[in-house]
Amino acid sequence: MGLMYHEDYKVPFYECDVNQNIKLSALLSLALQVSGKQSLSLGMSDEHVFNTYGLVWIVTDYDIEIQRLPHYSEKIRIETEAISYTKLFCYRHFYIKAESGEILLTIHSTFILMDFKTRKVHPVLDEIVAPYQSEKQKKAIKLPKLHPVEDGVLSEFPVRIYDLDMNRHVNNGKYLEWFFDSLGMDFLLDYEPKHIQLKYIKEVHYDYTIQSTVYVENNDDGKSTYHDISGDEGLHARAKIVWKERE
Amino acid sequence: MGLMYHEDYKVPFYECDVNQNIKLSALLSLALQVSGKQSLSLGMSDEHVFNTYGLVWIVTDYDIEIQRLPHYSEKIRIETEAISYTKLFCYRHFYIKAESGEILLTIHSTFILMDFKTRKVHPVLDEIVAPYQSEKQKKAIKLPKLHPVEDGVLSEFPVRIYDLDMNRHVNNGKYLEWFFDSLGMDFLLDYEPKHIQLKYIKEVHYDYTIQSTVYVENNDDGKSTYHDISGDEGLHARAKIVWKERE
Repeated sequence: MGLMYHEDYKVPFYECDVNQNIKLSALLSLALQVSGKQSLSLGMSDEHVFNTYGLVWIVTDYDIEIQRLPHYSEKIRIETEAISYTKLFCYRHFYIKAESGEILLTIHSTFILMDFKTRKVHPVLDEIVAPYQSEKQKKAIKLPKLHPVEDGVLSEFPVRIYDLDMNRHVNNGKYLEWFFDSLGMDFLLDYEPKHIQLKYIKEVHYDYTIQSTVYVENNDDGKSTYHDISGDEGLHARAKIVWKERE
Repeated sequence: MGLMYHEDYKVPFYECDVNQNIKLSALLSLALQVSGKQSLSLGMSDEHVFNTYGLVWIVTDYDIEIQRLPHYSEKIRIETEAISYTKLFCYRHFYIKAESGEILLTIHSTFILMDFKTRKVHPVLDEIVAPYQSEKQKKAIKLPKLHPVEDGVLSEFPVRIYDLDMNRHVNNGKYLEWFFDSLGMDFLLDYEPKHIQLKYIKEVHYDYTIQSTVYVENNDDGKSTYHDISGDEGLHARAKIVWKERE
């Protein structure tokens, strides 16, 4: 367990969807911003890591448990903690809490350090992670395998300029919008996500059209959907989402 | 001149574009949020106006003068002031200021009150605008006429679920993304906007594809672009943007 850091937030109108909940893409961006602030407060900002070591942090996996999505105007607390690290991976949790202290979402994330020039994974440096006081562990956490989508329904999304962030690739949060959008409005009005497993494989750039393939499975008490984001350069991301009926 | 209200803000990573400036769409959303907070602080929140009178505020026009767009991590102040009103229109200014006090953007906006049930414009009620202490004036401000785009280049944008806001129509900020996106990446890397005139004509809903038509005019010291957003239901918005070369 490492040092905790938190920030309070009030969900603004412009980050809410048609269900009056915060967009999950916006919540992920917000969570990353809070971990960035923790890094800054510990003297290990992204800029420092880049300038000193030529390395950048990359999220490779999310596992998100959702009790309830925050709603418009709700006051929430975003807590984060760098849990542990291995030779190659760093594990960080985020807890999104209601004002009452109840946990609304738990986000388990996996980060790697990438060498900006070679674009290759770089071993974790003890001096970079030391300030967070997280534990070093030998074994990487075994994430459940996500299987390729078969017999899926295809939607195409051209990448737009405003899908890109300052790094000129598609922002991580956008993938969730592609997953959700390919299910259609009726589905999203009837069901809400309760568990998301998401694996990022390869970044997406401008002037590119992605294919979002989705397969919907009916469960006893809801649905599971399986998603592949692909393009001319192969597979970019894969996800499984478990849904429950809205009340 | 009416009561001033302001809020300070630090531009987050996830609201920045490939040029490391805040996305204008995000800045407009933020500005509207600040005016919403002023209304709340004066006991005249959007909810109160809706619940008491069945009316909702609608932006019909923006005139935006841009000295410089705020950049990533910059601390800015958003000031707003309800300037004046007529029988049908309310005029509000926003000033986006740097930490030094320098004005970066001036946003002149025009609002109307719409009857939510009949979808028709409702005359401004003195009791709704009284708390802002703005002046009543007889004559409406004459906004420059925007002419239809001729010989324009067409791009099509299907409306996505996450283009919609809680009101289930396309968020006002999205139109700017459509205007900008239809100019392409090279244009946006070479030029920055210095003046925008934007007129909203009719809202856009889900399951709709909009046609964005743009005509580019070369000026001595930059370019002007003329934009129409149309669809099966006719014209939805129109804009003129004046651009200068990036330094």
